[in-house]
Amino acid sequence: MKKTMMDGNLAVAHVAYACSEVATIYPITPSSTMAETCDEWANAGKLNALDGTLNIIEMQSEAGAAGAMHGSLAGGALTTTFTASQGLLLMIPNMYKMAGELLPAVFHVSARTLATHALSIFGDHSDVMATRQTGFNMLASSNPQEAMDMGLIAHIASLKTSLPFLHFFDGFRTSHQINNVEEISLDTIKELLPMEKIAEFRKRALNSDKPHQQGTAQNPDIFFQNREASNVYYNKVANLVQESFDELYKKTNRRYNLFDYYGDKDAEKVIVVMGSASDTVEETIDFLNKKGEKLGLIKVRLYRPFNIEAFANSLPKSIKYIGVLDKTKESGSVGEPIYLDVISALAEMNRSNIKTVGGRYGLGGKDFTPSMVKAVFDNLNKNAKTHFTVGIVDDVTNTSLAVEKNFILENDDIISCKFYGFGGDGTVSASKSAIKIIGEATNMHSQGFFEYDSKKSGGVTISHLRFGKSLIKSNYLVNNAEVIICNKTSYLNNYDLVNDLKPNGIFLLNSTYNTIEELEEHLPTNFKINLANKNAKLYNINAGKLAYKLDLKNKINTIMESIFFYLTNIIPYPLAIEKMKEQNAKSYSKFGEIVVENNNKAVDIASKYLLEINYDKNWKNLTVEVDNNTQQDAYYKDFIAPILKLKGNDLKVSSFSADGKVPTDTSKYEKRGIAAECPLWLEGKCIQCNQCAFVCPH
Amino acid sequence: MKKTMMDGNLAVAHVAYACSEVATIYPITPSSTMAETCDEWANAGKLNALDGTLNIIEMQSEAGAAGAMHGSLAGGALTTTFTASQGLLLMIPNMYKMAGELLPAVFHVSARTLATHALSIFGDHSDVMATRQTGFNMLASSNPQEAMDMGLIAHIASLKTSLPFLHFFDGFRTSHQINNVEEISLDTIKELLPMEKIAEFRKRALNSDKPHQQGTAQNPDIFFQNREASNVYYNKVANLVQESFDELYKKTNRRYNLFDYYGDKDAEKVIVVMGSASDTVEETIDFLNKKGEKLGLIKVRLYRPFNIEAFANSLPKSIKYIGVLDKTKESGSVGEPIYLDVISALAEMNRSNIKTVGGRYGLGGKDFTPSMVKAVFDNLNKNAKTHFTVGIVDDVTNTSLAVEKNFILENDDIISCKFYGFGGDGTVSASKSAIKIIGEATNMHSQGFFEYDSKKSGGVTISHLRFGKSLIKSNYLVNNAEVIICNKTSYLNNYDLVNDLKPNGIFLLNSTYNTIEELEEHLPTNFKINLANKNAKLYNINAGKLAYKLDLKNKINTIMESIFFYLTNIIPYPLAIEKMKEQNAKSYSKFGEIVVENNNKAVDIASKYLLEINYDKNWKNLTVEVDNNTQQDAYYKDFIAPILKLKGNDLKVSSFSADGKVPTDTSKYEKRGIAAECPLWLEGKCIQCNQCAFVCPH
Repeated sequence: MKKTMMDGNLAVAHVAYACSEVATIYPITPSSTMAETCDEWANAGKLNALDGTLNIIEMQSEAGAAGAMHGSLAGGALTTTFTASQGLLLMIPNMYKMAGELLPAVFHVSARTLATHALSIFGDHSDVMATRQTGFNMLASSNPQEAMDMGLIAHIASLKTSLPFLHFFDGFRTSHQINNVEEISLDTIKELLPMEKIAEFRKRALNSDKPHQQGTAQNPDIFFQNREASNVYYNKVANLVQESFDELYKKTNRRYNLFDYYGDKDAEKVIVVMGSASDTVEETIDFLNKKGEKLGLIKVRLYRPFNIEAFANSLPKSIKYIGVLDKTKESGSVGEPIYLDVISALAEMNRSNIKTVGGRYGLGGKDFTPSMVKAVFDNLNKNAKTHFTVGIVDDVTNTSLAVEKNFILENDDIISCKFYGFGGDGTVSASKSAIKIIGEATNMHSQGFFEYDSKKSGGVTISHLRFGKSLIKSNYLVNNAEVIICNKTSYLNNYDLVNDLKPNGIFLLNSTYNTIEELEEHLPTNFKINLANKNAKLYNINAGKLAYKLDLKNKINTIMESIFFYLTNIIPYPLAIEKMKEQNAKSYSKFGEIVVENNNKAVDIASKYLLEINYDKNWKNLTVEVDNNTQQDAYYKDFIAPILKLKGNDLKVSSFSADGKVPTDTSKYEKRGIAAECPLWLEGKCIQCNQCAFVCPH
Repeated sequence: MKKTMMDGNLAVAHVAYACSEVATIYPITPSSTMAETCDEWANAGKLNALDGTLNIIEMQSEAGAAGAMHGSLAGGALTTTFTASQGLLLMIPNMYKMAGELLPAVFHVSARTLATHALSIFGDHSDVMATRQTGFNMLASSNPQEAMDMGLIAHIASLKTSLPFLHFFDGFRTSHQINNVEEISLDTIKELLPMEKIAEFRKRALNSDKPHQQGTAQNPDIFFQNREASNVYYNKVANLVQESFDELYKKTNRRYNLFDYYGDKDAEKVIVVMGSASDTVEETIDFLNKKGEKLGLIKVRLYRPFNIEAFANSLPKSIKYIGVLDKTKESGSVGEPIYLDVISALAEMNRSNIKTVGGRYGLGGKDFTPSMVKAVFDNLNKNAKTHFTVGIVDDVTNTSLAVEKNFILENDDIISCKFYGFGGDGTVSASKSAIKIIGEATNMHSQGFFEYDSKKSGGVTISHLRFGKSLIKSNYLVNNAEVIICNKTSYLNNYDLVNDLKPNGIFLLNSTYNTIEELEEHLPTNFKINLANKNAKLYNINAGKLAYKLDLKNKINTIMESIFFYLTNIIPYPLAIEKMKEQNAKSYSKFGEIVVENNNKAVDIASKYLLEINYDKNWKNLTVEVDNNTQQDAYYKDFIAPILKLKGNDLKVSSFSADGKVPTDTSKYEKRGIAAECPLWLEGKCIQCNQCAFVCPH
């Protein structure tokens, strides 16, 4: 089994390419790289499991992609698509038709928030939940490995059942999270694909030699009867999906069920959840059950059809409380979708005595952490709050559960790191490179997740890395890092970078400073206090200067990566150097041998420029000047400033206008101070071309 | 209060026009006449309740109509639209945005089936159910009067709540059913519209003098909190809609509640249903409770938000069984939408001890009759079947409930009639004219519903008319008629026209025959037997001959209408003659005075040409020749023939391919024999232009 580091989108593209003849696409964030990768592979002539190449067709919108897909399937071609959010909504009319005509369509959806009061490119389940009534079967996966596995199951099961499947996973959280993935080989895929079912599917297709009609118009006399004729197909889905899971297990040793139970055999409190959150719940259960709790989790894998019998079988008899978590909000409903399903399933099983409550989490990509999981479990009691929210403070309608801020899972097996970079400076690339080196050169598990703000190039980037001997189930941002690296000194003024550092951790600063004295003078007081309070080790490097010297211009990523390996020692430094040089050859040879050499030199000598700062332990006793700027208006102070300081998560519901309206003319508030060099107006040289006014955003 | 005869679409257009400044449209069956009527009124300069005219804008599709609507509302204009089915699906992305931005949009939807295995232009709730998660509030109405009332409530409540409303009613069954409607005057509408809320709405709109931003992009730090900020608005909806109901009641004396209970105070068995079926359930409850049953009904009016408290208050304490009826099918779900809501509401009320089952009815416009209502009540017992279907025979997955074919509600207060016409021959117009005369000239209640087959002009039309002293709640096809009229003799060969005639009823035939002997010779044996078995009175008229004589060409509608009034005597014949002449003046003066005069003459003399046929009572002893045509293939005999004979309702589920596929080359089976005159090929005159081959469909 080939182990590689890949994100969810790549994992899915791998199986989707292998199992499809046609992909009709209209790429949309965060699904785009699935389509783009398939497009690259198709152009390179990569073979699929049918020994052909994928025919990839971009349409004018997702509506067209779905229409073309319907036609392609009607013509007997194995067809897939990749989409999310509003894109998926445009496919809904054709989804009903594909389901009605029993066509084995496969959609891979990197689930993303639907635009309501505001747009969000991040992940929740509002998009896929808007299609749960279409007749598509739905499979959820929780991490890149599962995305590959469930993605493959979707293709296999669609053929076995003659029905369409929508396979989804959390946008960004899974689609863009890099993990160790055991790649399923093309040979294995060939063995698993039901070739006889493909032949049957082709026989049923439109064929001018044996013509038939489909998609006719029916009147009230016969429509209803025909609508019920597909029941036999749906009745078989659960068994056929389980059969596909079992076949996959034989090949890969990875075991899935329609509903997977995790936790104490005699659990009294159980969470039901779907998608990436389930790993986090698992991890939290591991931690709490070790301390004597009896907690459990039901992971929903096959969401449609929702098989009551399988759900019933997954429930321990001891259960007294169920907390159902939905990553969507349906205003005006009795409750969110999985909650309604669970309540109804329990009623049909005559188990309505289990007290069941439901709540919302993770909307718009809100991070979902172990402390929130604990809050949900803590709420499961006689007076349990229902229709709650978790992860925010709702001080208006009081839906929110109280969350302990300081509840952090201690896991000595895992090392976590956080890199603050600047969009375009190579930090994310360096982080990805480091993960790949560790993940592929060792038996360790690695995970990488990358936060970008909406400014893209020039905005702040935060890379969250975890490395460990045990499986990494932490599908949330790093909040307890051994190492924090900051590539831009101005961030020290704007953000509280030390907050997520473990006591005694390492803080590495890239700055233009070269001595302890300079640092003493320029570092912000707040930063000094926080650092000293954590008893952190402080390192400094002037990577910009070194990069300039090595003719790398402003690309400091190789230098920082080398320093990272030097400081953390996750793998032996000489091995890291060797691997980094291999990476350099791959990444830079297209720019010429000299660039590779310069980068190799950077790898070799970076650690020599590192400065350990033995700061004064009395930093913790410094006092901060209070900001008495009374000119700041309330809107800035109470709303804009926290967001700019990366404290937006702390804003309460009462801070927001209910309809998402915001004032104009607010960019003036944002003084990011991110330029390494600053332009200066020289009166003598000005020819009044006015281009400065054109270029400057302020 | 002005009483007029109108269908649901006209009733809704009346209030939508009055309450809107802009309508963005893309007409789709069966909603089209709402938009078309508003367009006509706007062109005629009709004033709305704000003393302006409606600005009506047709876009390139429903997607555009919804986008334009969003923009129009953001700009502060009261905006409405009319749609159905796939059209509504295209509006979904903008629906989320309108709800998220708290915009008082009003959609009027003539609910129509979504295309799945086949397209259907007829009504069920699959379209509106596909939008229940968007954050739109949803109001259902059951008949044209309610469509006007709820339509108005939707506009009022959208302003009071600052939230969008989707008001819906059953496509065709309500949209095209003509009933007595008490028209709400423009003055009353003005009094009911919350003008101060309109002013508030305008203040919140985009305004370049006081600019703001809306529809921004939000990141994970703040999206969730903002998404919960609208809860306060949704929490108020139920009260504000009830307040609007109460205000309407004061003006109109028509009482509505969020959930209306109907039936025995101590009912043990209750049906929960929404839309036109609820009237039929009421009527059946009236009939059965008189016979000693204790049955009840909960009509869902405000479907979203689904208010658990109001639902709880509507339930009698005595309830042991609930049957929830859904007019949609969501393959793979635990159950259909209202079922899930009811189960969850009962669980939250701690009343899960009430045994609750759910089922589907009326898909694709399937007629829903009292016998089906009885079947649902009969099923409510300890061993109740759940996830059932009613109205079909499912011999594959056995979901269907057994339905007594002969269960017919006897109601001496109501006279019902059935007219078989030929698309384009004026039968439907004559029927509508008759209803309007009776409905507007008397205190009687009238109802008209019109079946067309998909051939439109040239196909069979069946007009279903009811007249009575009591309110007509029968929202289903006439199946027990006092009078059946057939305009085309060939129908006697193809269809069983006597089946729905009451014993001792009247059968009127329009034929080219003039004597009892001709009829004796030409009438089909089957027809004779059935007629004699019912002891029916038979009348004949050669209306074509009379029309030709009066220079009316092939337009026989005036003649038939006059005969109808003569035979039924529902209103005094001289009054009917007077009213028909008034109608003639309205309808035909645009064609010239002579046409009016000829039609008036037809009204006057028609009855003189009527022939009562005192047929031989021994007709009942005739024997039918068995059709021994062994050349017919099985597909024709078992599938096409029943449909052509209007017996498609009897086809069982096993008759259908699950994916809706059908053979090609089947039009050859259909020999309709509908031409009154037949073209003949004259060899001597043929110039071999080949146009005959071009024109002839066979």
